[in-house]
Amino acid sequence: MKKIINAPENYTDDMLKGIYGAHSEQVKHVGDDLRAYCTAEKKDGKVAIITGGGTGHMPLFPGYVGDGMLDGCGVGSLFQSPSAETIYNITKEVEAGAGVLYLYGNYTGDIMNFDMAAEMCEMDDIPVKSIVGADDVTSNENPAARRGVAGIFFMYKCAGAKAAEGGSLEEVLAAAQTAKDNTRTVGFALTPCVIPEVGHSNFTLKEDEMAMGMGIHGEPGVWNGPIKTADEIAQEILTTILKDMPVQSGEEVALLVNGLGASSVEELYILTNSVREYLEKKGIKVYRSFVGEYATSMEMMGASISLCKLTGDEMKAQLDYPVNTPFYCQK
Amino acid sequence: MKKIINAPENYTDDMLKGIYGAHSEQVKHVGDDLRAYCTAEKKDGKVAIITGGGTGHMPLFPGYVGDGMLDGCGVGSLFQSPSAETIYNITKEVEAGAGVLYLYGNYTGDIMNFDMAAEMCEMDDIPVKSIVGADDVTSNENPAARRGVAGIFFMYKCAGAKAAEGGSLEEVLAAAQTAKDNTRTVGFALTPCVIPEVGHSNFTLKEDEMAMGMGIHGEPGVWNGPIKTADEIAQEILTTILKDMPVQSGEEVALLVNGLGASSVEELYILTNSVREYLEKKGIKVYRSFVGEYATSMEMMGASISLCKLTGDEMKAQLDYPVNTPFYCQK
Repeated sequence: MKKIINAPENYTDDMLKGIYGAHSEQVKHVGDDLRAYCTAEKKDGKVAIITGGGTGHMPLFPGYVGDGMLDGCGVGSLFQSPSAETIYNITKEVEAGAGVLYLYGNYTGDIMNFDMAAEMCEMDDIPVKSIVGADDVTSNENPAARRGVAGIFFMYKCAGAKAAEGGSLEEVLAAAQTAKDNTRTVGFALTPCVIPEVGHSNFTLKEDEMAMGMGIHGEPGVWNGPIKTADEIAQEILTTILKDMPVQSGEEVALLVNGLGASSVEELYILTNSVREYLEKKGIKVYRSFVGEYATSMEMMGASISLCKLTGDEMKAQLDYPVNTPFYCQK
Repeated sequence: MKKIINAPENYTDDMLKGIYGAHSEQVKHVGDDLRAYCTAEKKDGKVAIITGGGTGHMPLFPGYVGDGMLDGCGVGSLFQSPSAETIYNITKEVEAGAGVLYLYGNYTGDIMNFDMAAEMCEMDDIPVKSIVGADDVTSNENPAARRGVAGIFFMYKCAGAKAAEGGSLEEVLAAAQTAKDNTRTVGFALTPCVIPEVGHSNFTLKEDEMAMGMGIHGEPGVWNGPIKTADEIAQEILTTILKDMPVQSGEEVALLVNGLGASSVEELYILTNSVREYLEKKGIKVYRSFVGEYATSMEMMGASISLCKLTGDEMKAQLDYPVNTPFYCQK
């Protein structure tokens, strides 16, 4: 196993200790619970936004906790949900009198634990709303049953900006909902990743093979076959996305080209070029491009493409809103 | 070959088209030469800093061109030096009346071409000073003969801040020199990387093997052997660095834990934790930690550790100076 680690069972906690040590001015944990991750300073009067999910997708999920984005993150073990107690403890720490939004990916374990935490908050009279990211187009025909993947970034960005500007809980939820309704993602993998405590990948791809539509935990995609060119991949993915969410010539989108972990920055920009050329031919304008590792599967090779259809100037301003976290900075 | 590309021979140019398309508000190329990369807006009266080197190390080298850091970058083909003509053309474009600093890594081809460009500038009466990064401790006993690797980031940061604050060419050069004198790096690889036009790696590491001291182009290291734990790796590297550059208990350093491409963000923070614990035991204080992919070898697994010994408040202010490039943002 090619990993820079100590004991595999300490993977998540060793990582968290590294983060808290390196970025103590920006983030902290609640009490003794390393998994209860939040901003170092509470922002009074602001709607608090809390996310969460399993380790293995950095900078997703904790990486988006900071100014202009989120207030807390329940950190689960590798590919595991955070506990309800952890989420509840974060909520008690960061809620600042304006209510709380839970914003996370559409996975059964996460839903169960966030719902349980919301019930605990209800007994404390803390108003909590919830919304899940479900942007992975090929994971299910039914939009409500889709997995949440990298496109949750646009929900973080829009809801985070609205909350930072003093929006109410209903307004912050609406901003997240608008981003969700207008975001679609399709990803692909060239290699699997290895779970440290297992020591080997639980599936293989041949040397010339890729998996189109694979999920960020290695969930099977829509086809496995020979690796296509960047141009061909961009065309196939954008055809799929635009069939599911039509964007007319002259309309604007935000683009996220996200690396799954091991594919180089060079390749992500080669793919970005293919995507932009395809969209240009369709007359679709890219208002802003985000390129890099936003939601990974540890050392998986591959990438995903997300489009967020812009609904107007308010959404543009939300995407341009300054952010400063230890993992993501935008001026 | 597991790459997201079109024709391998277009690797560098396709990447550059992607970058210029995505970030046209911040960067541009000079005339028709895609490899002549610079800031979109010239900064009048400021010392211009130009770097350069081969593709394959993103975000090094072009990724540090932007506010608070560099003004231009000569982009070479994969692991190849940029041409003297490209460097000269960038210089003509970005020099703004206060002279130019060439700041790049200690490699023969780069030295030859930057020196040639400097001679061309001399004929145009443009004052040019040069300094090379040479931080890779294990690459040579003789400090002047060492390769330049990730530690060049600290030179960019200090020189960039000094130039942004209006420093003279001599002052900017001195800031780079101080960072150079106080920076040491040691890296290690767990896997090789594949050159697109070759299609396979030119060496192999066994499934349980790592290469300590390997260079960012796959130059042989000091030993190949079984993969050590993060704690053991941190201890060996820091012992090597601190033997070469003593840091006393009570003194302060800046830390850079740099991923070579494929190792996960999770692992980089596990390693960061090991490094910080080791330094704490020695009484060495980490003033600021930089963790992520700063200088890669495409999809190589592994990392490097750099220490920059702090010489005083001015250097701290330079490390904290705000930066905004398409690839690196610091508030």
